[in-house]
Amino acid sequence: MLIVMKKGTTDKTVQSVVTAAERRGLTARPIPGGDRVSIGILYNKGSVDAAHFMGLEGVKEVIPVTKPYKLVSREFQLENTVVSIGGALFGGQDLPVIAGPCAIESETQTLTIAKAVKQSGAAVFRGGAFKPRSSPYSFQGLGEEGLKILAKVREETGLPVVTETMDVENFDLVEAYADAVQIGTRNMQNYSLLKRAGRSKLPVILKRGMSATLEEWLMAAEYIMEEGNPKVILCERGIRTFVKHSRNTLDLSVVPAANKESHLPLIVDPSHAAGVRDQVMPLAFASAAVGAAGIMVEVHHKPDEALSDGAQSLLPAQFDQLMQKVNAIHAITGTKAL
Amino acid sequence: MLIVMKKGTTDKTVQSVVTAAERRGLTARPIPGGDRVSIGILYNKGSVDAAHFMGLEGVKEVIPVTKPYKLVSREFQLENTVVSIGGALFGGQDLPVIAGPCAIESETQTLTIAKAVKQSGAAVFRGGAFKPRSSPYSFQGLGEEGLKILAKVREETGLPVVTETMDVENFDLVEAYADAVQIGTRNMQNYSLLKRAGRSKLPVILKRGMSATLEEWLMAAEYIMEEGNPKVILCERGIRTFVKHSRNTLDLSVVPAANKESHLPLIVDPSHAAGVRDQVMPLAFASAAVGAAGIMVEVHHKPDEALSDGAQSLLPAQFDQLMQKVNAIHAITGTKAL
Amino acid sequence: MLIVMKKGTTDKTVQSVVTAAERRGLTARPIPGGDRVSIGILYNKGSVDAAHFMGLEGVKEVIPVTKPYKLVSREFQLENTVVSIGGALFGGQDLPVIAGPCAIESETQTLTIAKAVKQSGAAVFRGGAFKPRSSPYSFQGLGEEGLKILAKVREETGLPVVTETMDVENFDLVEAYADAVQIGTRNMQNYSLLKRAGRSKLPVILKRGMSATLEEWLMAAEYIMEEGNPKVILCERGIRTFVKHSRNTLDLSVVPAANKESHLPLIVDPSHAAGVRDQVMPLAFASAAVGAAGIMVEVHHKPDEALSDGAQSLLPAQFDQLMQKVNAIHAITGTKAL
Amino acid sequence: MLIVMKKGTTDKTVQSVVTAAERRGLTARPIPGGDRVSIGILYNKGSVDAAHFMGLEGVKEVIPVTKPYKLVSREFQLENTVVSIGGALFGGQDLPVIAGPCAIESETQTLTIAKAVKQSGAAVFRGGAFKPRSSPYSFQGLGEEGLKILAKVREETGLPVVTETMDVENFDLVEAYADAVQIGTRNMQNYSLLKRAGRSKLPVILKRGMSATLEEWLMAAEYIMEEGNPKVILCERGIRTFVKHSRNTLDLSVVPAANKESHLPLIVDPSHAAGVRDQVMPLAFASAAVGAAGIMVEVHHKPDEALSDGAQSLLPAQFDQLMQKVNAIHAITGTKAL
Repeated sequence: MLIVMKKGTTDKTVQSVVTAAERRGLTARPIPGGDRVSIGILYNKGSVDAAHFMGLEGVKEVIPVTKPYKLVSREFQLENTVVSIGGALFGGQDLPVIAGPCAIESETQTLTIAKAVKQSGAAVFRGGAFKPRSSPYSFQGLGEEGLKILAKVREETGLPVVTETMDVENFDLVEAYADAVQIGTRNMQNYSLLKRAGRSKLPVILKRGMSATLEEWLMAAEYIMEEGNPKVILCERGIRTFVKHSRNTLDLSVVPAANKESHLPLIVDPSHAAGVRDQVMPLAFASAAVGAAGIMVEVHHKPDEALSDGAQSLLPAQFDQLMQKVNAIHAITGTKAL
Repeated sequence: MLIVMKKGTTDKTVQSVVTAAERRGLTARPIPGGDRVSIGILYNKGSVDAAHFMGLEGVKEVIPVTKPYKLVSREFQLENTVVSIGGALFGGQDLPVIAGPCAIESETQTLTIAKAVKQSGAAVFRGGAFKPRSSPYSFQGLGEEGLKILAKVREETGLPVVTETMDVENFDLVEAYADAVQIGTRNMQNYSLLKRAGRSKLPVILKRGMSATLEEWLMAAEYIMEEGNPKVILCERGIRTFVKHSRNTLDLSVVPAANKESHLPLIVDPSHAAGVRDQVMPLAFASAAVGAAGIMVEVHHKPDEALSDGAQSLLPAQFDQLMQKVNAIHAITGTKAL
Repeated sequence: MLIVMKKGTTDKTVQSVVTAAERRGLTARPIPGGDRVSIGILYNKGSVDAAHFMGLEGVKEVIPVTKPYKLVSREFQLENTVVSIGGALFGGQDLPVIAGPCAIESETQTLTIAKAVKQSGAAVFRGGAFKPRSSPYSFQGLGEEGLKILAKVREETGLPVVTETMDVENFDLVEAYADAVQIGTRNMQNYSLLKRAGRSKLPVILKRGMSATLEEWLMAAEYIMEEGNPKVILCERGIRTFVKHSRNTLDLSVVPAANKESHLPLIVDPSHAAGVRDQVMPLAFASAAVGAAGIMVEVHHKPDEALSDGAQSLLPAQFDQLMQKVNAIHAITGTKAL
Repeated sequence: MLIVMKKGTTDKTVQSVVTAAERRGLTARPIPGGDRVSIGILYNKGSVDAAHFMGLEGVKEVIPVTKPYKLVSREFQLENTVVSIGGALFGGQDLPVIAGPCAIESETQTLTIAKAVKQSGAAVFRGGAFKPRSSPYSFQGLGEEGLKILAKVREETGLPVVTETMDVENFDLVEAYADAVQIGTRNMQNYSLLKRAGRSKLPVILKRGMSATLEEWLMAAEYIMEEGNPKVILCERGIRTFVKHSRNTLDLSVVPAANKESHLPLIVDPSHAAGVRDQVMPLAFASAAVGAAGIMVEVHHKPDEALSDGAQSLLPAQFDQLMQKVNAIHAITGTKAL
């Protein structure tokens, strides 16, 4: 349930409504908006009587929220959430691009790529230190050594860095080095990990599960927000379908659908959806055109030697072209205002 | 199998290779390209010995084609096929837009919409006279009366018109009125209908089946080309997936994949994929950005009163905005050269 | 809308209700049941006032039917429809099995297989004379010559025969030879063909479309029934999913779901779902166990030489085993009574 | 790579081959079979030269294994793995049934159901103490209190108990109470959890991911086996498709496909696939018929009051019927011998 306060209500009045709710055994959380404050009532088992709150001072309206999520919904917060990764703003007017190799392989490789993508205008650097791999016999990443290389990238290029965290055990370690953490497709419903991310101070990029509905995805984001971390960025990366011409099917209709349903920024990763280089560039253009809040692509200077996902990595020169065109498209289609 | 002739080979030499193939019981079909002629060998059961042809005058190369289709493939014809619908060119440098209501409901409705879309820059008018409907109790279209209204639209606006044909029985009738015929999603593998379309002089817009792979779709196009009609335009309109936030999932990765595999122009219909108006505009932008050879959208001046698919129809004013933006995007991303 | 008449109502009273409906511009169709008659009101655009009928003589109840289909629904007819193909009863207590090769290739092949499956207890013989093939270059069937061979099979073995009809043009021809016609997966929403089948006197086996929902499938059956042919048998043959270990995914949950929703018999074809021989037998057992009203399998005496679908055909000895086990399982799980 | 030893080779000879492999920097693991020992060579990056081993004493054959998994494959171990959960054998001649409520709600509820299913012949009791829920606001299970109730069930009924473990943090706790642990659908690719399960002494029931291919599922099992735990039971529970008449689509073709590819026992859970009670019974019959190595169903004595998944739980009387019929079917179709 959502209690919408009148404009200009004082903090004290807001607090008195929170206290009133708590006296009834409910959890109340104030949500500051652009010009007014709302109060979310969480965990109400069964229905809560709106009449309890309607008469209180400062209360304008009481809205029942019937969705299985609350904090992530537009009903709860009308304005876009803007998440900053080291100064790059997702959810605002810009179209920041995250780029880098699938996996951190060595310092030389990583720095070479980082300097190239920085030059072309990337806003954030990405690279995997812990790699979730379907087979236990595939390259699993450099671990902490990879994290140290990422730190060096930040130092030398000034780019903030994002990397994947696969479990609660290594979360502290990743947190110590990264500017943002990524939760991968396979872990979208790993609730222990989501809760740990909810207790982090870092922004979280939450990739959509292979066959997750929009509702399930938003509920996964709710797990993070519900623990106290509002800095969630959703990332579409293709869904599993019967199709054979691409690794996954990039679901761009989810962008307007999620923008309508939630205030969280949604970025698109065309590299994992495509699986082949030929498709990455046109799908990145389409992602900019459809109104994504950011784009994440894989770039490798020697894709044929990459330890993972070389086939879908762009060459630096291709990435440079991509940046020019996505910026030009973004200038036309702009951001989804609300 | 494909026999590639040397540049500048005379028609007579080409003919002598065709004759040689026919003497061996094979069907040979010359395919004129930009700067050279190739000869397709069709229906060869089992393998044909390349050596039979390598030594003949004018033959440059003999390429075995292992795909289950031939005429539609890039291997067979390197240059894009450009299909004209009443002067609007699909597969060239432009991005023609086809617009109109889902169903023809009345002369007034149809002319009102046609004038509006013409004004905004639509290149072709669309409207259904025969409607395939899942339920026998839904509105099935006006039939020939609808076709007559389409003819009137052409007369009054100068726009060429395209409409769906659902069966062999009514094909002659549709052919008598339309500038291009459309074969719908449900009929993509109606082989009798495909063969009839292959004997038509009109261009054919072939919609992708609800769960068709790219290969199956190209084989359906092959049925049409194989009967002698090379004027085939492919139309992506969304595939069936587990997703609930849109009616179908628009598969934009099929655009670069099909462009690589086939020389046929591929247009995108975001209206049927989306199912709701909110998504049509951003998906149309994405279609332009991904490199579609055209866009088809539904427009209705009174969508709330439409007899079918009102929820996904754009208002004329929205369509006007759409035209400006897709043209601006197309100017950036251009056409897929080959 | 459905008007349920009191038990023992005379035909004359029923007719007077029909006349009353027709006077209001409605189409009314009496549906005889086990112990009472109901009257279906078809094509009512908008709502029909139940009060018009509640007071009439003999009327017990008036039930609004909100589904997009009527004639096929359990609400409309409570008892199972039992369809006879040359004496083999689908929808009753038995589990008749339909067997034969994918395609009719020659008289010798066909008779050899027919005698074998007859001996093992098959109730109906199947074989394709017109074959829908994804590629125009694949074997398309023997046509009328194949139909003549089927007639010979019936003559020599006494087995009724079923074969596919692909279009309206050849429907008369197929009808002249077969005991039942099959409408294939690709034609499930070929409405012209469905309507033609609705005007046939023969039973129709309607295969489920590759990605058809249960509702769409029942609406396709409604097209046939609505034209006047109540002898429809539904056939599940696998749906398209992301799965790679079988050609299609056999959806056995559709059997109880359809039995709940519709009175029509539903048979299962495990051969097309599996695509490989290893899986056909266990899936046939599962089909019997789940309550199918019949089973259809492909049998070939020389599968390695078959012109189509040899990989999924059982050998006659395997079919013999299959028959014994499915009969034993059917004796345990019985038929879905209602 | 797999080194197959001659029959009757001594342990010492086997060990000398292992040592030879290790000297080359490879990991070698002896795999005892029915009548001979094989040695698996793991983690070989790139190809390993078979010639290194062909000449060694006792070596019969060297087989390259090209699959992305090794330990789980039939090529690696021909005989079925038989896994015991407290004496109930999965993978042998029997068809043990696991039954119980979705969630442990109270001692009374749990014991009531446990006594009922024991009486009907269930071999193992199931019940969730930690529940993965899509929404953070749904009932999340009783935690350790639930585990204590499970221990009491075992004490009072003698039934071994299985329950889900959702993360590494709570694994020790679950392990302390349960006879087998279950890894749920959402965690099939939670590699940290899989590795922890691989270091457990308990059998692991590994549910198939919502959209996992057979290959991905087997690779997840490989993660467990590779850490040293060979007691893995696969559990099919339905996959995500476009279908709306059931919660998921039970993929029974995976049973013969997995039995061909892997030696691990595969059980089927029709309750989660169906989502509605009506379908559970027929799908359980089908699971027995298709050759499952066990069945897992949800039973609740008051399904309308269940805190989760009541709609798909069978009543004890229905479960009793189910047991009789699945046993009768299993007597006909037997186990998949190999």
